[in-house]
Amino acid sequence: MFADRLIYRINDMNNPTVLGLDPQIEFVPDSIRRKNPSDALAISEFNRKLLFTLHDIVPAVKFQSAYYEMLGPEGAVVLKESIQFAKSLGMIVILDGKRNDIGSTARAYARAYLSPDGYDADALTVNAYLGTDGIQPFLELCEKYEKGIFILVKTSNPSSGEFQDLRLDSGERIYERMADMVKGWGTSLVGEYGYSSVGAVVGATYPDELKALRERMKKTPFLIPGYGAQGGGAADVMHGFDEKGNGSIVNSSRGLMCAWKNERYKNRFLQEDFCEAARHEAVEMRNALSAAIGR
Amino acid sequence: MFADRLIYRINDMNNPTVLGLDPQIEFVPDSIRRKNPSDALAISEFNRKLLFTLHDIVPAVKFQSAYYEMLGPEGAVVLKESIQFAKSLGMIVILDGKRNDIGSTARAYARAYLSPDGYDADALTVNAYLGTDGIQPFLELCEKYEKGIFILVKTSNPSSGEFQDLRLDSGERIYERMADMVKGWGTSLVGEYGYSSVGAVVGATYPDELKALRERMKKTPFLIPGYGAQGGGAADVMHGFDEKGNGSIVNSSRGLMCAWKNERYKNRFLQEDFCEAARHEAVEMRNALSAAIGR
Repeated sequence: MFADRLIYRINDMNNPTVLGLDPQIEFVPDSIRRKNPSDALAISEFNRKLLFTLHDIVPAVKFQSAYYEMLGPEGAVVLKESIQFAKSLGMIVILDGKRNDIGSTARAYARAYLSPDGYDADALTVNAYLGTDGIQPFLELCEKYEKGIFILVKTSNPSSGEFQDLRLDSGERIYERMADMVKGWGTSLVGEYGYSSVGAVVGATYPDELKALRERMKKTPFLIPGYGAQGGGAADVMHGFDEKGNGSIVNSSRGLMCAWKNERYKNRFLQEDFCEAARHEAVEMRNALSAAIGR
Repeated sequence: MFADRLIYRINDMNNPTVLGLDPQIEFVPDSIRRKNPSDALAISEFNRKLLFTLHDIVPAVKFQSAYYEMLGPEGAVVLKESIQFAKSLGMIVILDGKRNDIGSTARAYARAYLSPDGYDADALTVNAYLGTDGIQPFLELCEKYEKGIFILVKTSNPSSGEFQDLRLDSGERIYERMADMVKGWGTSLVGEYGYSSVGAVVGATYPDELKALRERMKKTPFLIPGYGAQGGGAADVMHGFDEKGNGSIVNSSRGLMCAWKNERYKNRFLQEDFCEAARHEAVEMRNALSAAIGR
């Protein structure tokens, strides 16, 4: 069961962080850019070095598909090899693709990303605007291959409320109804820790909603973006965890990838030391989260 | 302006059809499968032959991204070259990816698919669950490069109503509110024919909703899936057109790709004649649409 694998690994490392690899070429130090003949290859090396540096303290990685798609077909190669490399290091791999379509096409997406003959990530983010028949094919592969999905419920961006916070005639908001649908889809995939392999994306930037959703969907693991660069802190995300310290995984992308650019480290790390800077930042994030959660 | 280019080409051919290329290997005749060393290459040849056969009577093509992603990195190569081939034939290219994310990531998706240094499609389908800041980057590239987007409003699948038909406290349904948002995003991109480059996806399988949406959003072009294999017919989609016969483009995927498998043609076309079968079917579809619209 995906949920069990994820929680076991988080607990093993005592760290609910997910490394977000949303690489843009500007994030890659000159030393790596100089020696690679293309942006895609530079990003590939950048990814490998960060993954290798962090794999023993960070349990999971989230690849943001858009940044690989932006590199064209070469980006698809980098994505595939980065996923394989991360898995070979024992990391849990989440692909952030927010895919969505009608049943037959959702089946193609599920095969593309969750089946062993595809990109073979451990989990995929999904958008459920199309309802149950656009989700069902993902659930089938989750069951078959011990994979997971995280469905958008309350996103981290400034205008997320514009649509998601609209109130239904039943009195609840759109994202609350979505939360209930996600709960329903996940009931048959609950593992030994009491969490489902059908998770929800809930932004760190809306701590009140995060807290209420934790109450509303007790068996749904949360993937929490919005920590760090987007403004969320440890005090915000703590509401995503249960009393045992389980229930969420917190993503940091620019915070870790661009630690070497951080003003705080300016006199401490050189560009070439981007891995050490990232590791330093990852340890700080782990400690901040542990303190906030009370692990 | 994308909307003008699209309508001009539709009128030029007197055919509001879009060829859907959602190829699965089962759709490709044995003769092509035998001589290609991989599924991806077989699909590439299949696409090229269909595009070449239909480009003088069908104005546009829609690639369903999922089926290319399912082929791994090789699929990305096939997608890119198929897009280029279709454009070289003068066809309008829509990429059906239903992408969606926060602003910074939406910018990456926009660059990936709509910029000349990316896949360079003419238009992309988009899901607006995240609200304005997830749409804005697409609008910017639509303006800059004369591209378009089609945003999911009312999808063609059986369970689309489960979420999209929920009623808000204002009395309108979710898809109606989404329609109004789409209208708003499109106001600054209206072209000479009176239609915007910000379109909507509205399924042929819900003709009443299609009719009401045509009234509600008079400047929004519709991309209509669900014709043929999913059950929609010419009498259903006619509601998507205005009195001049403009305003919609109707997708047929399996109907055209798999015409050679159609029972009706069993004694008429061999497998190798899949192009002739597709052309026959495309002419029938054009005539059925023309008759229904009264062009």
